[in-house]
Order: sequence, then structure tokens, then C-alpha cells
Amino acid sequence: MTSTVFTGIAELVTNDEHLEGADQSEHLGRLRNAAVIVQDGLIAWVGPASRAPEADGRRDLGGRAVIPGFVDSHSHLVFAGDRSAEFAARMTGVRYDGAGIANSVWATRAASDDDLRALVGVRIEEMRGQGTTTVEIKSGYGLNVDDEARSLRIAAEFTSETTFLGAHVVPPEYVDRRAEYVDLVTGEMLSACAPHARWIDVFCEPRSPHAFTEDEARVVLSAGRDAGLGLRVHGNQLGPGPGVRLAVEMGAASVDHCTFLSEADIEALAAASDTTVATLLPGAEFSTRSRYPDARRLFDAGVSIALATDCNPGTCYSSSIPFVLALAVREMGLTPAEALRAATVGSAKSLRRNDIGVVRPGNRADLAVLDAPSYLHLSYRPGVPIASTLEERGRHGS
Amino acid sequence: MTSTVFTGIAELVTNDEHLEGADQSEHLGRLRNAAVIVQDGLIAWVGPASRAPEADGRRDLGGRAVIPGFVDSHSHLVFAGDRSAEFAARMTGVRYDGAGIANSVWATRAASDDDLRALVGVRIEEMRGQGTTTVEIKSGYGLNVDDEARSLRIAAEFTSETTFLGAHVVPPEYVDRRAEYVDLVTGEMLSACAPHARWIDVFCEPRSPHAFTEDEARVVLSAGRDAGLGLRVHGNQLGPGPGVRLAVEMGAASVDHCTFLSEADIEALAAASDTTVATLLPGAEFSTRSRYPDARRLFDAGVSIALATDCNPGTCYSSSIPFVLALAVREMGLTPAEALRAATVGSAKSLRRNDIGVVRPGNRADLAVLDAPSYLHLSYRPGVPIASTLEERGRHGS
Repeated sequence: MTSTVFTGIAELVTNDEHLEGADQSEHLGRLRNAAVIVQDGLIAWVGPASRAPEADGRRDLGGRAVIPGFVDSHSHLVFAGDRSAEFAARMTGVRYDGAGIANSVWATRAASDDDLRALVGVRIEEMRGQGTTTVEIKSGYGLNVDDEARSLRIAAEFTSETTFLGAHVVPPEYVDRRAEYVDLVTGEMLSACAPHARWIDVFCEPRSPHAFTEDEARVVLSAGRDAGLGLRVHGNQLGPGPGVRLAVEMGAASVDHCTFLSEADIEALAAASDTTVATLLPGAEFSTRSRYPDARRLFDAGVSIALATDCNPGTCYSSSIPFVLALAVREMGLTPAEALRAATVGSAKSLRRNDIGVVRPGNRADLAVLDAPSYLHLSYRPGVPIASTLEERGRHGS
Repeated sequence: MTSTVFTGIAELVTNDEHLEGADQSEHLGRLRNAAVIVQDGLIAWVGPASRAPEADGRRDLGGRAVIPGFVDSHSHLVFAGDRSAEFAARMTGVRYDGAGIANSVWATRAASDDDLRALVGVRIEEMRGQGTTTVEIKSGYGLNVDDEARSLRIAAEFTSETTFLGAHVVPPEYVDRRAEYVDLVTGEMLSACAPHARWIDVFCEPRSPHAFTEDEARVVLSAGRDAGLGLRVHGNQLGPGPGVRLAVEMGAASVDHCTFLSEADIEALAAASDTTVATLLPGAEFSTRSRYPDARRLFDAGVSIALATDCNPGTCYSSSIPFVLALAVREMGLTPAEALRAATVGSAKSLRRNDIGVVRPGNRADLAVLDAPSYLHLSYRPGVPIASTLEERGRHGS
């Protein structure tokens, strides 16, 4: 029950639109020369340093900026092996269609529980070292009952935001028996996985022979909902398609990628902005050399937006939210503030969480510290590792 | 006189095209399961771990990749203040024309020697933490005799690759007296600066009212050469211009930016490839939202290419060579191997150094270690801080 007051905060971004005395430009709820009191892992007090109450301990952050910890709401961290050769080939012109996922499936099935656990642990540490405090983790490289279930069991050791993605691709052994695979995913595999998962997801992409059609995706999502899981969708990544429409129709919390959208898709997302978030993953476009989603247009249309890494061995092996923010500003026309909100309060909304993403009393004390005086440096200093979690910083000294 | 053998090197990139038994695809001189012996700061031995001779000490790098340390041959590290607000404005459409440099000049002139020294020190540490072992540092934010000379004195405390850039822009107080400023730069300022500099540089960009014309640039470079300095040029950044032609004509070691080139420019650079290196700075294009240089075309034409950060407070406040490599592959069509060579042996050539950039006996033991099994991960894992110098890694543990 000890409390710590953090001072020396040159700029505190709270995302709290109701914080008294804060600079509310772009809804950041910013305070200069701020202090935060943390008690039992929760925010106990936020305000100007000059008015901070006493606490049991005190830490001076030396004039740094503090922001809500990043919420990485889309990752695929449970995998073995790497696909750097596939990446290098793609950079010489080979097109991505999802076929390489099978390589990660072989390697993941072959790995021991301890190996997988160690790999996930290293990746989580890497994320924390870059300011991420919440991470969603999908299965999807097991693609059989046992390997999907153990992927989720291992993911659940690290996060409560676990997502069953048995419908990632149709595994090679079911290529000529798609209906059987959908039966498996919605039957025995779902039963084995649901106890370890909060969400269900499906790669709905009719352009890829490896992914799922609209009808197949609807069946998968319906079964997941019946099993008590929340809904997420991979949609409209490789071309126009039914993913966004389906996600909105079914009230999914998030539809992810949203690279190729029609006017009707944008209108549907805008109308559903309280329910369904469009999660943009520009790191995937960077690493597949694809065009970027039009975040500016989505934002201006009133769509709820999140940003996440998509960290995975095939299309984006980046764990860095700061890199994603720099891309969002450079390539997708978001302001640095809009990008920051999308990767914090926006991605928290896509996980239907309001205890993270906003720095206010009662919320989790999930904070990131920047080696910089302002959040602007996240996009002003691309590639430079200036962010880490408050906890990581404590471990390595300030 | 103690020696250390480094083992546990899953992949060693030497850039040594004559190394026996090495994989010479793309001229990387690669060894798997390699060892390196370092003695007195120099490479004493390179080869397969199974044949490594004894040494006084031994360090196991745990299956990591080792590459030549990055040579960042273009930076502007001596400055105070930041220009994040200018960056944010540019991202909403304000065009870069060099005017903002004056803001850094005011802040730099106002800073104490100790403050400037501390700022440079922090930036060098940041670079080392990302795998850079050699950095070139320019003056250019003093723009009067005393402040240019002290910028170079301070830079020289950190590197032997110091560059006098009094001809960065015409400072506001000389706007109506350009000829007088050129006289100052080539006269009293050059005399005060030459003892602390190895190179002279000029921002030759007729499109910017703040930079220098071809004739002015020729006068500046001639004076520098007469004072014993090597020549570098900022050219063809904002539009087509005479910079490349002038650099080749005068035998400059490097012409930097090269974003807007004519056919004649490319032919001239190709013909001068033994003398003049084209240094590409894609971080600047990233942070000014400009088009990228056509590195693929330059490379295929036989031009010598280097990659560097351009780290500066205005157009690219990134100190990260890994970020530059990821851009070079994604945006400029280089292979991961070509990009790596450009930022090591290529940039060493632009500094006319052959004691760095290639890992071979007798060369400096300037090495970078990757938290990855292969150099491919530098572009496969964009934004992730996987590189650091061997020395930094030693300090923080492996």
C-alpha cells in the first residue's frame, strides 16, 4: 500500500478530456511540470507538481515527457522461426498473399512449450522496452486443436487480451477440405481454446486462397460469440472485400488493417464508431511495400481509429509502436497527437477497456516515459528508441 | 596488450571480399559460427570459431550477428534547442526551405560550452546505442567566427571526422550582404576553424534563398582546399542543381542528399566513383515528406553510395542508422546487403577511410552486435532497437 509521487515531468499527456487546467488542444489533456501519484499499480492523483500531495516515495523523472503506455491491440507473438528470407524476397518484388504463414506453423508446432514461452517473453520485454504496457496476443500458428490451445495458454501467461485465431489461414493439410477445417475451428478447436481466450478473430480476405470467405468468417465469428468470446476481424488488407461490412454487421470490437475501403465501408464504420474500431497497422504496409490506409479520411469521417504493430514473423516483424506512430504521421496524414491517441485511448477502446489509455485517478498506472521533453518527439525522432515503460525505466535507472 | 576472442557469432558480416571461405554473395564476406580476436582496439584475427587461436579473454555473444560498426558520415550534432514544432507544422503541409536553421543558430549561440558538450555527448551515446562506431560531425549552427570555431572544438572532442560548415546558410544578419558573409567564411572564420576540422562543406542549393549558389560554393570549397581541408558538398536536395556537378569537378569526397539528379549528374558520379561518393540521407526525406533519391538507379549505374542519418534538429532528428537501412530497402530499392554495405564500407569510403567499414586484421575493432541471428533483421525488424556497438553491449551485459 505504498504510494510514489513521480515529479520532473516536463509534459504529461493524460488523454483526459475533462482534466481541469489541462491544455485540451487535440484532446490530449496535457499538463506541463506535472506530477503523478501511483499507489498499488493504480493512478491515485494527477496534477501540477506544485500542488502534489505527499506520498511515501518520490521519483524525479528529470524533465521527461510521460504519456499513457501504448496499447498494442494487434499482435501475433506466439510463433517460432523467422521469415527474414521471405522478407528479403518480397523486397525484390515477390507479392505477399499469406502463403508464408504455413512456414511459421511448421516451426511453431515443432517448438516445445518452454521454447515458445521464452520467445513470447523476449518479445514482450522488447515491447515494454519501447513503451508498450498492454498487448493483445493472437494464436494462429498452431492451426490444430493442441497447438492452438497451447498457444493461447502460453499467451495468457503474459496478457489477459488473448485472441483465438484458428481461422488465420486454412492449413495445408485441409486445403481440399475447407469446410472440414471450419467445422474443426468452430467445434473441437473452439472448445479447447475458448477457456484461454477473450476474443475470436478471423482472416476474412477472399483475395487470398489461404484466408476465409465472408460466409466462412460469419460462421466462425458466430460460433465464437456463442462461446462467449468478443469479436475481431482481419479485413480489407489485400484488396476490397467484405471484412469491414461483416465486422460492423456483427458488432465486432475491431476490424483490423482497413487498407482497401469503399465509401460504404467508411460510412458503416463511422455509423458504428461507438462499437467498432478501425485498427490500422501501417507497419505491415511498410514491410510488404503496400499502399497505406487513408487514416486521415477515416478520422475526418468520424471513424474510431486505433494503431497497433501487427507484430508477426511474416508481414511486420516490428514490435515498435513509436515506429508505427512515425509512419502514421508521415504516410497516413495523422497529426502526432491523433497518432498518439490512436495507439493509446483508441486501441484501448478496440479492446473495450477504459481502465487504460487515459491517465486519471482509478485507472491502471500504465505509463510510458520518453527521453524527450514532449510527445512530439515520438514522430520527430523516427527510429530512435526514446520510449520505455515507467517500470522498465525504473529497472535500468533514469 | 590483452586480447579477447569473441565467439557465439551466428553470422559475421566482414565486407571483406577477399576473405577465404566466406560467403561472398552481395560482397558481404559472411562467415557462420565465426570468431573475432580483438587486441588493442584492432582486429587481430577473423575466421571460423572452430579454428580460433587462444586469446587472453573470451566472450560468448550468444548466437548473435556481428557486423562492421555503422559509419555515420553526415551529421549535425552540435546544436541546442529543438524544432519539434517546425516538424509538426511541416507534417500539416508547411514546406521546408532551410529557413528554420536560423532558430537552431540562436539557440546554439546562446548555449554554454558545457551545455553544448553535454548535448553532443548524449547524442553520440544514443548513436553508439544503435550500432554507430564512427560519426562525422559538422558545425553550421554558429555562423560567426567564435561559435563556428567552438562548435568544431567541441565536435573534435568526440570524433576526428569534423567538418566546417560555416556555409550552411547565410545568417539573418548577412541577408543583404551575402558577399561579405562568403568573405567571412573563407577568411577569418576559415582560419579560426581549419585547425579543428578535417573537412569543409557547403549547402549548395540555388532553390533556397538561405543557401549558396554554385559560384559561392566554388569559392568556399576552393578556400577550404587551400587551407588543407577535404571537400564535401550538400547538393541536389530540394531540386535539380549544380551541387553534384561541382562536387565531381572539384574532386569532393562526398556529395550528400542527391535527391534530384539529372542523367548527366548520374553519369558524372559514375565516372568519378573512385573519388566522389553519393551520400544518401533518406531520413531527411522521411521527415520532410519529400520524394526519395533513386538509390537503385545510382547503384546500377556504378555510382559509389553511402547512407547516413543527417541527424539534425530540422529535417531529420534521427540518430538511427538501422532506421535509415529500413528506409533504403523499403523506399529506395536497395537490397538489405547493399544498404548495409552503403552504411559501413560505403560511408567509410566517403570519409576516405579504409581502417573502418571492413572487418579484417589490422583494421579498427569497430563492431556492432545485433539481437538477431542475421544482418537481414536490420530491415526485417524496422524500428526495433536490435543494434548496438560491441562496447555498449559489454557495458550493459549481453
